Amino acid sequence: MTTEIRWPEPYVTEALRAVRDTSPLVFGLTNYITAGLNANMVLAVGGSPAIGGNPAAVRPLATAAGGVWINLAAQVTDSPELLLDAARTAHAAGTRWVLDPVTVGAGISVSDDLAAELIGSVPPTAVRGNASEIIALAGGSATSRGVDATATAEDAVPYARRLATRTGSVIAISGPTDYVTDGEQVVAVPGGHRWLTRVTGAGCSLGALVAAFLAPGTDPLRATVAAHAVLAVAAERSALISRGTGTFAANVLDELTILSEGL
Amino acid sequence: MTTEIRWPEPYVTEALRAVRDTSPLVFGLTNYITAGLNANMVLAVGGSPAIGGNPAAVRPLATAAGGVWINLAAQVTDSPELLLDAARTAHAAGTRWVLDPVTVGAGISVSDDLAAELIGSVPPTAVRGNASEIIALAGGSATSRGVDATATAEDAVPYARRLATRTGSVIAISGPTDYVTDGEQVVAVPGGHRWLTRVTGAGCSLGALVAAFLAPGTDPLRATVAAHAVLAVAAERSALISRGTGTFAANVLDELTILSEGL
Amino acid sequence: MTTEIRWPEPYVTEALRAVRDTSPLVFGLTNYITAGLNANMVLAVGGSPAIGGNPAAVRPLATAAGGVWINLAAQVTDSPELLLDAARTAHAAGTRWVLDPVTVGAGISVSDDLAAELIGSVPPTAVRGNASEIIALAGGSATSRGVDATATAEDAVPYARRLATRTGSVIAISGPTDYVTDGEQVVAVPGGHRWLTRVTGAGCSLGALVAAFLAPGTDPLRATVAAHAVLAVAAERSALISRGTGTFAANVLDELTILSEGL
Repeated sequence: MTTEIRWPEPYVTEALRAVRDTSPLVFGLTNYITAGLNANMVLAVGGSPAIGGNPAAVRPLATAAGGVWINLAAQVTDSPELLLDAARTAHAAGTRWVLDPVTVGAGISVSDDLAAELIGSVPPTAVRGNASEIIALAGGSATSRGVDATATAEDAVPYARRLATRTGSVIAISGPTDYVTDGEQVVAVPGGHRWLTRVTGAGCSLGALVAAFLAPGTDPLRATVAAHAVLAVAAERSALISRGTGTFAANVLDELTILSEGL
Repeated sequence: MTTEIRWPEPYVTEALRAVRDTSPLVFGLTNYITAGLNANMVLAVGGSPAIGGNPAAVRPLATAAGGVWINLAAQVTDSPELLLDAARTAHAAGTRWVLDPVTVGAGISVSDDLAAELIGSVPPTAVRGNASEIIALAGGSATSRGVDATATAEDAVPYARRLATRTGSVIAISGPTDYVTDGEQVVAVPGGHRWLTRVTGAGCSLGALVAAFLAPGTDPLRATVAAHAVLAVAAERSALISRGTGTFAANVLDELTILSEGL
Repeated sequence: MTTEIRWPEPYVTEALRAVRDTSPLVFGLTNYITAGLNANMVLAVGGSPAIGGNPAAVRPLATAAGGVWINLAAQVTDSPELLLDAARTAHAAGTRWVLDPVTVGAGISVSDDLAAELIGSVPPTAVRGNASEIIALAGGSATSRGVDATATAEDAVPYARRLATRTGSVIAISGPTDYVTDGEQVVAVPGGHRWLTRVTGAGCSLGALVAAFLAPGTDPLRATVAAHAVLAVAAERSALISRGTGTFAANVLDELTILSEGL
């Protein structure tokens, strides 16, 4: 059963209001290319981001945070042990955490092994990836090239459902229409804009936004859907007033600010 | 005695002109999230920034630079030894340097210890932080969460004065109104905009700007005040023409460009 | 013999169309300050960038990529061995690669030695630097301060020709007018805007763009000229509608988007 959700669905606006009103600390491990935009997106919806793999800070932050996201692209600067440590700390502390399986299935075995270990030992509250990554995570075969997808989001839905059922995680697939599932319900989130794939870190920001939306205790499926629906409408509105990818990125942050402050 | 200073106070415009005309090399150690915006702010006022912890480059750069800033958030990628080495090199070379005590007082003991050692052994020309950080540095008790402040800037003024007297450093506290003191005089710098706290690295850019304004040899109190007053007016003007945090950040850089090039 | 080339020279538009239509994977090693803008520039012209020194990913990416760029500023986070490994892998795989000799000639011997070893053992398809860097690479004497140039681009042309003849690489010099040479022909690319030197990473983005333009198999001299001509016209057009360096950077990305999507 697939339902379609878009802004201003009441539970979406409610989830955004909860982020703004609680301003949760959201801790992320990601790579340096995406970190600035990820942090600015979280700030624009009212959260308090902290990013970075200082080993002395990972445990205190993963414990204190309301939500944690781990983007496997963090491996550019952080060791697999550090990422595992952050996930285990979040899991032990009861902190909801999000896995962004960037490069899984791309033929970089260290990523595949790390993702499998994370999902197997300390299952994330939610996983957010593109179609190829989700298919690969679910044990299917797909080719992924860096952060690009070659399979469609629709192709990945059955894999996402199986993965959600097996792990208990909410699984989200990014595409022209995004899909979010808990294994039973499938929610389609239309909207967004193709320029989100032409701004580095824009897609990865969904991992950070999902962590922010999970932090206030919102139902995990609804929180994950809400994060996607908020970015989708911000991107749609931004595209209407932008000439290219540069002002588009700035205007997406503006639109998130307006959505958050206007509630 | 508190005086209030804002653009276009003559010594502020003079300090900005000195940066533009001498285009000082300003060397910073900070983390990768803030580095891009920090560098662009220094460039917008006419300075020449260099950032980064390549161990082979730290000593030559800290020696050659007109000003150095060390943001403790650099610990995400750089070792404490490297930060100490940079500060000692600057101190030995007579290069003015600025400490941004991010996370001091946040319960991350490695930061507190490092800050204490830096201040004790090679006192910075200026320290720039939020209220919680300055209170913690001065030995008071406050809670700081990452880069957020829970104490007000006004609360921190007596701590800042004591810290300035003890160390000989100029101490600056960021807030809705900023305060800068050398232990005797207290200068209030009104202005700015709350969105400066919703753009990652915007507050941290003050550390870089203070280093740039110190470089030409301007009186340390006046240079620190000037850096704050310039960012405050740029942020105020930017907010008037921005819809949210994305265009706000771009417009702050524009306003700094206009102030610098218009002199 | 010097010829002048600017947009919309047919071979320039053809080279841009080839990037857009093939969307090559372009792999870069650079530092964290420039990485975001570099990636966004490559995305804006239609390429697929991947950046970063995860040791497990360097060889697969340098092999799979259509073009590789190595910016010596990567030494802030990556070891010289990793940069050599990437260049050797690209060379062995027949992947065209670009060297950006940031800081060569600046008195940081590790950079000079690494550049000499790279050029001597696995000659790049193209080298892109400022005048001081190119003069130093060619064995002349110049002073370079970080990424700033003190010699003019015109001064560097004879050095660039000698270096091109000796190495077989195309050599490009950035300046108010850029010069590109294969040792015989010298192509002048006018345009651009001085604000390109006031946005961190904007100049470095040329290394990434040259790698993107080389990837489809275009003649190396023409591909290198085309990358410079495309950025030059985007910067010129952006400056006409920008108040300062913040909106200028966003508008450069917009203009690149418009050039690429409008073909």
